[in-house]
Amino acid sequence: MRHAVILAGGSGTRLWPASRRARPKQLIALSSTGDALVTTAVRIGADLAGDRVTIVTAASQAAATREVVPGISLIEEPFGRNTAAAIGLAAAKLVLEDPDAVLAVMPADQHVTNRSGLVHALDVALRAAEQTDAIATIGIAPTRAETGFGYLELAGPATLDTVMPVVRFVEKPDLATAERYVSSGRYLWNAGIFCARAQRLLAELEVHLPATAAAVREIAKHPELAAARYEALASISIDHAVMEKAARVVTVPASVGWDDIGSWAALPAVRGSDASGNTIAGEAIVLEGTGNIVMTDDAIVAMVGVSDFVVVKSGDAVLVIPKDRAQDVRLVIAALEARGLTKFV
Amino acid sequence: MRHAVILAGGSGTRLWPASRRARPKQLIALSSTGDALVTTAVRIGADLAGDRVTIVTAASQAAATREVVPGISLIEEPFGRNTAAAIGLAAAKLVLEDPDAVLAVMPADQHVTNRSGLVHALDVALRAAEQTDAIATIGIAPTRAETGFGYLELAGPATLDTVMPVVRFVEKPDLATAERYVSSGRYLWNAGIFCARAQRLLAELEVHLPATAAAVREIAKHPELAAARYEALASISIDHAVMEKAARVVTVPASVGWDDIGSWAALPAVRGSDASGNTIAGEAIVLEGTGNIVMTDDAIVAMVGVSDFVVVKSGDAVLVIPKDRAQDVRLVIAALEARGLTKFV
Repeated sequence: MRHAVILAGGSGTRLWPASRRARPKQLIALSSTGDALVTTAVRIGADLAGDRVTIVTAASQAAATREVVPGISLIEEPFGRNTAAAIGLAAAKLVLEDPDAVLAVMPADQHVTNRSGLVHALDVALRAAEQTDAIATIGIAPTRAETGFGYLELAGPATLDTVMPVVRFVEKPDLATAERYVSSGRYLWNAGIFCARAQRLLAELEVHLPATAAAVREIAKHPELAAARYEALASISIDHAVMEKAARVVTVPASVGWDDIGSWAALPAVRGSDASGNTIAGEAIVLEGTGNIVMTDDAIVAMVGVSDFVVVKSGDAVLVIPKDRAQDVRLVIAALEARGLTKFV
Repeated sequence: MRHAVILAGGSGTRLWPASRRARPKQLIALSSTGDALVTTAVRIGADLAGDRVTIVTAASQAAATREVVPGISLIEEPFGRNTAAAIGLAAAKLVLEDPDAVLAVMPADQHVTNRSGLVHALDVALRAAEQTDAIATIGIAPTRAETGFGYLELAGPATLDTVMPVVRFVEKPDLATAERYVSSGRYLWNAGIFCARAQRLLAELEVHLPATAAAVREIAKHPELAAARYEALASISIDHAVMEKAARVVTVPASVGWDDIGSWAALPAVRGSDASGNTIAGEAIVLEGTGNIVMTDDAIVAMVGVSDFVVVKSGDAVLVIPKDRAQDVRLVIAALEARGLTKFV
């Protein structure tokens, strides 16, 4: 049977203050539909697998996750140990109930414009996993020379919605390399979305990460052991642990308006802009300014003569930062922690 | 007997959003002592006149004013009609109880660094009013070529804390004129602070503004007539109505750290700055930035790479504006009113 596995373990601070440790990015409504990103991921999962949708999340975020997507099966990690452990645990749990489980794995915090397009690509990938026991990733046709993502290298030009062998996983490139990748037509964004049989994933883990394989099988049978076993697990991504080493890794190239929301600067791609070139979520008055990103929950934001700024009011915090410094929200998090103001993180 | 009359009728929007129509500038704590400006004014009044302190305010602000300075005698105007009407009404009321009342009149929203210095200057001015029936203003020795104030012209250089004749009241000058005024030593800021016998003020009003004089005397006896009579009163300042035309107008030059707080840009003069050159009231983290003015009530404000900005979080509103545009908060007020968002004003 098909199962959707949604990874929702983000640390939640890149979109501070809307996103917090206890209420990370995937649980907040960034799009104009008012839906949280995780809700969109669950819908995609349900399109593929009906009610067989499982979210893997940190225990500290479980209550907030249940609040946003009630009734969805949750696997709680005592704390994050990167994707190899999270996916391994999901595979080990699901295979106990359904030895023939085939998984569609995806992050909870992705943004997708063309949801049905992604469902179609995942359907092609699931069939590859079912019929050939491949590990079938979704490769996103790049729309810019992004240096923040890893890439999948193909032997030749990508053809959308077809199964193609992956030659190589490549790390985040520098800008010149990224530009070369994009113009070549042979490189796709690695979006962290893939399909595989649970048995195959566990078998790969047993080869490449045997301690993790043993631990997740044990925890799947005895969840009360999670707290004791998790600490010792290697914190490693499924890409590094398995994908880069495994045979029969294929990809389904897709062009579905997929994007990561890595910082506030990405919000216009999700929500669009108004006639003045400002992206506004919530009540705001922006006079004599353009290129601003404004998000506010329960206060009106008023700006005069300000351009290319990010202004976010959320709960007990206000962020003001130039758009080209949006990545430096991390400096705020560091300062809050250094000053013992962790209640705001 | 001496009486202090504090004028608290400001429209309250220049320091939006901390200041609102219903809770104007004089009722909020701008200084680091946590005291509202009106509290400081009442202290000065009490230093001069004991418990004979009266605040004149708009009926719409009366409840908020009582909250801040409980127990102080209030005269409520149905709405603002500028200072001639407000002072006339106070004089008419006080003279009913005390025919020999001598008034020390001052605005509620002034900032004074050297309070006892101002009390001393006012004491000199009160004696001039008591002994010579003069109208005795306080003339503030200018510390900059301010174009936002009117000036008092003297015949010769000012001598602090002495009674000197005023040659002329002059309107807000342009910058070149203001610079000439300041370098001459013969011009003082008109701070709107003066002392006079109530009978003298009423006599001047009877000459120069007879309808107002008759109305305030009538309202003083029959407060229930205020709503009906106020609408027809001329909206004119005491300077234009009386000071510029009256004989025996003198001034007591004072250098007491007096200032108006005309916009957020003036806050550093009131509160000082920290080692990074930022003026911060409330909880804030300002990284890689200087010259900012930050005021927040119940949310932390975080800024990275921002300099010379005003950021204010107060109640249900957030303001972000470059410091050199601080006067343009009025554009926000206009936009809020144009969009029917008067609840935020």
